[in-house]
Amino acid sequence: MSGAGAAMHRVYTDLARLTLEDSQVTALTGLAERVRELTEAVLYTDVEEDELAGVTAELATLTERLKAARREHPPVAVLGEDGTVRQLASPVTGLLNPIAPPVRVEALPDGAGVRASFTLNVAYEGPPTFVHGGVSALILDQVLGEAAARNGRPSMTATLDMRYRRPTPHGVPLTAEAAVTRVDGRKSWADGRIIDPQGRTTVEATGMFVLPRF
Amino acid sequence: MSGAGAAMHRVYTDLARLTLEDSQVTALTGLAERVRELTEAVLYTDVEEDELAGVTAELATLTERLKAARREHPPVAVLGEDGTVRQLASPVTGLLNPIAPPVRVEALPDGAGVRASFTLNVAYEGPPTFVHGGVSALILDQVLGEAAARNGRPSMTATLDMRYRRPTPHGVPLTAEAAVTRVDGRKSWADGRIIDPQGRTTVEATGMFVLPRF
Repeated sequence: MSGAGAAMHRVYTDLARLTLEDSQVTALTGLAERVRELTEAVLYTDVEEDELAGVTAELATLTERLKAARREHPPVAVLGEDGTVRQLASPVTGLLNPIAPPVRVEALPDGAGVRASFTLNVAYEGPPTFVHGGVSALILDQVLGEAAARNGRPSMTATLDMRYRRPTPHGVPLTAEAAVTRVDGRKSWADGRIIDPQGRTTVEATGMFVLPRF
Repeated sequence: MSGAGAAMHRVYTDLARLTLEDSQVTALTGLAERVRELTEAVLYTDVEEDELAGVTAELATLTERLKAARREHPPVAVLGEDGTVRQLASPVTGLLNPIAPPVRVEALPDGAGVRASFTLNVAYEGPPTFVHGGVSALILDQVLGEAAARNGRPSMTATLDMRYRRPTPHGVPLTAEAAVTRVDGRKSWADGRIIDPQGRTTVEATGMFVLPRF
């Protein structure tokens, strides 16, 4: 893990990655949201092939316009007011990452863990009408990791055990919650679950997280 | 799981979802690939805010053009020549799904399991320069599931146990492999792993999969 620790240290001490003006965050958040809508439209579209070709070509032009000025790294993180790292480019929670649902994670009072809320569209579908099992793992890895690392320092997953109780529906508001159950030195363990709109647990997870040395 | 089984049965017997002409697949594949490039450009862009606003507005127009004709469901699957279901809209392997890397999965000869190849860009980043641990889980859930369900019938994940051995780098060619270790009635167990370009195992997984009743 020392390589990972060194890489994280370099990035989290690179202030250029941490400082993004609020207006930039707002503009990029809006752009990412439009890409999410585009993604859903791609999955449902039934327009003629010449129209597909036209849209495809114009899309390439828009991408080139965005590439006219390029950062060295994505704006991975900004420091939140409470000192926590906010992952702007995370594939799970990142407002700026079009592949993120995005999942919104909040700390519960009195160190009682974290709660997440999100709705997954058809892009995250596995079995018809249900969320892909791996997407539930993706989200719980993040949510458990945030419970374990709520002191603001990033941890890395060592183990993650998923137990699927019932199918998780997409297109409806879901919640996830997680809390640390044990800490031993650089290791922490967390339990969590995804809950459907009827309050039923659909997936349970247990994870062990390790704080890199740096 | 009976609800899931019934929903899957409805969709997999809906031939309208299963028949997509090759030229449509090609056109939609190209469109999805352009959305992936756009996603990466969004994460790296440093253009001025008025240019961001302009691109954002034009993107919304392109989305509306795609929505001019809409399918009832995404083209979830087509039947491969070998009788397997090919998940065109899968968030992991779907050529038509912009959030899929996409991962390419092939069956190994003599029932020796499956092998997958893929490269993950910065959109899948967790710790700086490395793949998000949950993304590794997303991919291994799919790859193990394909090993377990290689008879062409979709299975659902019951348990998935991930063991992270070392960080998985992004931006380089990765492989994953999985094989069934045991079958007992409707249940199958599979082991798998992700391998970095140096041939080192970065993540190991064990999964149990259940064939829905229908």
